[in-house]
Amino acid sequence: MTKEIENSILEIAQHSRAASRKLIGMCKDSKNKALEKIAQELESSRKFLIEENEKDLEKAQEDKLSEAMIDRLRLTHERIDGMAQGLRQLIDLPDPVGQLIEGKIRPNGLKINKVRTPIGVIGIIYESRPNVTIDCAGLCLKSGNAAILRGGKEALYSNRALASVIENALKQTDIPVHAVQLIPTTDREALNHLLTLDEYVHCIIPRGGEGLIRFVSENSRIPVIKHYKGVCNLYLDEGCDTQMAQDIAVSAKCGRPGVCNAIENLIVHQSHLSLLLPKIAKQLTEKGCKIFADDQAKSALGDIPAEKATDAEYAEEFLDLRIAIKTVSSVDGAISFINRFGSGHSESILSPSKERAKKFQREVDASSVYWNASTRFTDGFEFGLGAEIGISTDRLHARGPMGLEELCSYKYVIEGNGQWK
Amino acid sequence: MTKEIENSILEIAQHSRAASRKLIGMCKDSKNKALEKIAQELESSRKFLIEENEKDLEKAQEDKLSEAMIDRLRLTHERIDGMAQGLRQLIDLPDPVGQLIEGKIRPNGLKINKVRTPIGVIGIIYESRPNVTIDCAGLCLKSGNAAILRGGKEALYSNRALASVIENALKQTDIPVHAVQLIPTTDREALNHLLTLDEYVHCIIPRGGEGLIRFVSENSRIPVIKHYKGVCNLYLDEGCDTQMAQDIAVSAKCGRPGVCNAIENLIVHQSHLSLLLPKIAKQLTEKGCKIFADDQAKSALGDIPAEKATDAEYAEEFLDLRIAIKTVSSVDGAISFINRFGSGHSESILSPSKERAKKFQREVDASSVYWNASTRFTDGFEFGLGAEIGISTDRLHARGPMGLEELCSYKYVIEGNGQWK
Repeated sequence: MTKEIENSILEIAQHSRAASRKLIGMCKDSKNKALEKIAQELESSRKFLIEENEKDLEKAQEDKLSEAMIDRLRLTHERIDGMAQGLRQLIDLPDPVGQLIEGKIRPNGLKINKVRTPIGVIGIIYESRPNVTIDCAGLCLKSGNAAILRGGKEALYSNRALASVIENALKQTDIPVHAVQLIPTTDREALNHLLTLDEYVHCIIPRGGEGLIRFVSENSRIPVIKHYKGVCNLYLDEGCDTQMAQDIAVSAKCGRPGVCNAIENLIVHQSHLSLLLPKIAKQLTEKGCKIFADDQAKSALGDIPAEKATDAEYAEEFLDLRIAIKTVSSVDGAISFINRFGSGHSESILSPSKERAKKFQREVDASSVYWNASTRFTDGFEFGLGAEIGISTDRLHARGPMGLEELCSYKYVIEGNGQWK
Repeated sequence: MTKEIENSILEIAQHSRAASRKLIGMCKDSKNKALEKIAQELESSRKFLIEENEKDLEKAQEDKLSEAMIDRLRLTHERIDGMAQGLRQLIDLPDPVGQLIEGKIRPNGLKINKVRTPIGVIGIIYESRPNVTIDCAGLCLKSGNAAILRGGKEALYSNRALASVIENALKQTDIPVHAVQLIPTTDREALNHLLTLDEYVHCIIPRGGEGLIRFVSENSRIPVIKHYKGVCNLYLDEGCDTQMAQDIAVSAKCGRPGVCNAIENLIVHQSHLSLLLPKIAKQLTEKGCKIFADDQAKSALGDIPAEKATDAEYAEEFLDLRIAIKTVSSVDGAISFINRFGSGHSESILSPSKERAKKFQREVDASSVYWNASTRFTDGFEFGLGAEIGISTDRLHARGPMGLEELCSYKYVIEGNGQWK
């Protein structure tokens, strides 16, 4: 049995590598036609998709998943339209493959062009929402990469149905049908085996909970670009605009607490303890937010309810209406706190001082460091990338929002006239 | 004992991470002063360095290492001057940290700048030549990274001496002394422990033989940028300039066969079997080169001695005066052969046809793909990078020659005026 799984995973990886060799030579039009074809197949397969999705939903109800989880799993007409629309948006984006990154002519006459190429084969390991299957397939295809998709067990029927829709579509194009493949099992052993196949697979992108990401990075022999948690911090520096501070603190926490670029910790300069902090805390409380605070902040809050914040709260990605408050006496205190507890995602300072803001932006170690703006803007669309496969919390290859360009590698294409020494 | 080693490696990694946090804020002048100071200390420590190196040389003689190996180990006045000169060349190069990669202003007024930053802590695992210790220390320092160096056992006394010279130099500057640290043992267990410390170390660069690189990539939990072997191929397409073909084939094989950008395989279009191939083979033989060839090429060679080439020869990085010849009937044959046996380093086509050359450059999967030039130009200096830590055969983050820019990550530095939605 185990051997069978291993062989089927190996076969998927080999087919994927072969497809990626063909994809390298595929022109923009072929790829765009395939994206349109997948969109059309999605639209004409609504009934089938919704029926298969129903099986996942039934299972989810049996397993007593939360309403929120079940809602994320659900495929509706509107959501199917959304997936098709996402694919059509990709068609309009420039093809990253072949783009010139840098060109030079050397003194010996060699013309050296650094040119974008597909990475090759990308494995994407994800959880929950079935639309990720389509989004990732589209992004990989547009960037000339073969995709191996491994979704979560909750969405297995839906993902299999979506994969068969993609397969049907690709069969009608000149794109190799193995350009997009779904691992048809959510077995951990199968995943583990995939992670050893560095001969065929060039990059693994895990998206999901901490446990999944840890498992993948500890077991992968293939380079991993982690899309890890977002423990984002907002620092209210001495003298910051108090209206701006209220707007940003409250919206960055309560606007959509379940996303990775929402804030988890509010760091306040001690000068704000008496006036600004209570104002903000009151608004947070009114929005239903539970507050954890250090002793200084806690006593400044008076009768606004707050629990004692410990390191555990400062390090947690709450993903809900909880916030932890930390008091500091300088920008250096804020920087150290963030470099200790942040997850390298997004951090912000609100400050009137250019000098302190620049220090913060230089020394804070994160993908995106803001001055006088909310962390909520860390997003491929907001950054103008046109699309996004996720947000890397790693620092090699891609950091922050990953769009089509970040799904590419490069090569040097060199032209000479006989140079040999 | 094992626990002791683990603790000392952990301590090195923690000190390195702390140093890297300080390095992020260090200006160009501080880093350049430190480079100059190390150069001066090298020059004034000649006697000490040569004495310590003598211990490695004695050991090497006892262990009966080859003359070539012993020569590579040797530190001479000239080589010490060379190391100092290398550091001074780094001073003249632009500081990569803080360089603007791309800047934009979004419709909501956010100014988003993508800016180069140090990666953080880089571990470099290498073998043989002690000068690598100074080269890598200099490159990491200039790019604002803390370096953990782990050299080979043959050069342990020399490397320890060089590390103490660096330490003495850094003590006289404002660069943290832990910015450069040498693992003082060449124990595999110690290396293995280092490779698990992904909390502190951000990137591992292994340079050396296949065994070392395999060990590192299979055991590392830290992202690895491999500097793997160079199985480089030269393809002589139909109609190529025959003089160019002779010049490049002979020089790319025999000029310096021990380097990674020398060619190992010569692929010939069948139209060259009767005239061009024998000419080249004769010259190769005269230079002392041993030839392996497939049946077609072998029979074309007549009485020029050649052995039968098997897959084992096609896949080998000879690093000496051996070459394997493969006959193909089209550019597609050459591309498939290279994608099967090449190591993703450097490949070249000599061809009069722009169409076939472009196809070759697009479909061959390697860091550097040449048209009408020798593979021997794959090198940081030849590419105008000013310096080189090695040549990546990987495809994430850095591919091909890695200079100061490739030793950097980036972050998004964003300026707003209160944007929150």
